[in-house]
Amino acid sequence: MDKLDVLLEKILEAVEGKKLTVPLGISNRHIHLKQEDTEILFGKGYELNKLKDLSQKGQFAAKEVVTVCGPKSVIEKVRILGPARKETQVEVSISDCLKLGIKGKVKMSGDICETPGITLVGPKGTVVLSKGIIVSQRHIHMDEKDAKRFGVSNGEIVSIKIDGIRGGQYDNTCIRVDKNFTLECHLDTEEANALGVDSSSKVRIIKK
Amino acid sequence: MDKLDVLLEKILEAVEGKKLTVPLGISNRHIHLKQEDTEILFGKGYELNKLKDLSQKGQFAAKEVVTVCGPKSVIEKVRILGPARKETQVEVSISDCLKLGIKGKVKMSGDICETPGITLVGPKGTVVLSKGIIVSQRHIHMDEKDAKRFGVSNGEIVSIKIDGIRGGQYDNTCIRVDKNFTLECHLDTEEANALGVDSSSKVRIIKK
Repeated sequence: MDKLDVLLEKILEAVEGKKLTVPLGISNRHIHLKQEDTEILFGKGYELNKLKDLSQKGQFAAKEVVTVCGPKSVIEKVRILGPARKETQVEVSISDCLKLGIKGKVKMSGDICETPGITLVGPKGTVVLSKGIIVSQRHIHMDEKDAKRFGVSNGEIVSIKIDGIRGGQYDNTCIRVDKNFTLECHLDTEEANALGVDSSSKVRIIKK
Repeated sequence: MDKLDVLLEKILEAVEGKKLTVPLGISNRHIHLKQEDTEILFGKGYELNKLKDLSQKGQFAAKEVVTVCGPKSVIEKVRILGPARKETQVEVSISDCLKLGIKGKVKMSGDICETPGITLVGPKGTVVLSKGIIVSQRHIHMDEKDAKRFGVSNGEIVSIKIDGIRGGQYDNTCIRVDKNFTLECHLDTEEANALGVDSSSKVRIIKK
């Protein structure tokens, strides 16, 4: 954030008497695996090894990486995030989709209905997914207390706004409320770069 | 564009009695060379070979490509655009800057003042630039007739708006008017992907 952004935030806080901005989390391409697929890729009974904790409670970046193989080309060393999920989901950018040779679909994380398939190659085996690769829809994690503070509810669609040389507004940003969530707006790398922001930036919520 | 966008455009045209949208042109990383640098990279007296015409009159993509070398890594096969310019300018995305290991600066094309340097390697030689690599500020080319139609002037800063699942608005979009310009809004690949648009999309101009 430049000095003007910081000043603007301070003025908004003073006027409203509360903190109105949301920290940014920027997602590079990554994979959530179901336990069955972890064992195919890394071996029977394999457990992921934690590299570092992520900001959302219980979530972590694993030491493990795999190769994502599309009909046109491959992307190596794609990071696995833990813990295991019910369904395997591969989250990539639109540039990644073009590189892999698949038609990317913007979906909320967890919704892999009618998404393209992809092949994952690990050190011990290969998983051929018939579906599960998505371009994540931008969203904001928060707990009930933050939802009350911002006056929004789970599933609500808002816009987010950022100032600066590449400033602008993204619509269709989904609010996700859960008692375990930490306040954070998730963009992918292309969305962050297009607005000229990084993980030290904060966004403002604009209600519809 | 989805059906709703097409419908919206038709309604706007009917209401205003004129076409209000601007076609998109999406710029991948590329290089404009001064003739002296062309000769260092490709040989004495060398002339660029046209691969294809671009939408702006007289501009073309050349068959020639070079390697862009930064302190952290390199990007191979970066396309040269012709004709020759007064100063060599390398236009990349923020992702490219991170890959190369340089701090990208958003600048209007043509303004390379206080920008980082970079090294270009061609088949016949190497050019070590002390400045000249930029992240292009988004802008809209148009001629005087279009400027009148949109009610904007050269150098004016507007916003552009797009609908759809990744819809939103980009501020700080610069109007560039010249009698030789063809109506077109230029975004880089990250800006286009972040809004979920491609070169078949059209944007609306929002005046400040």
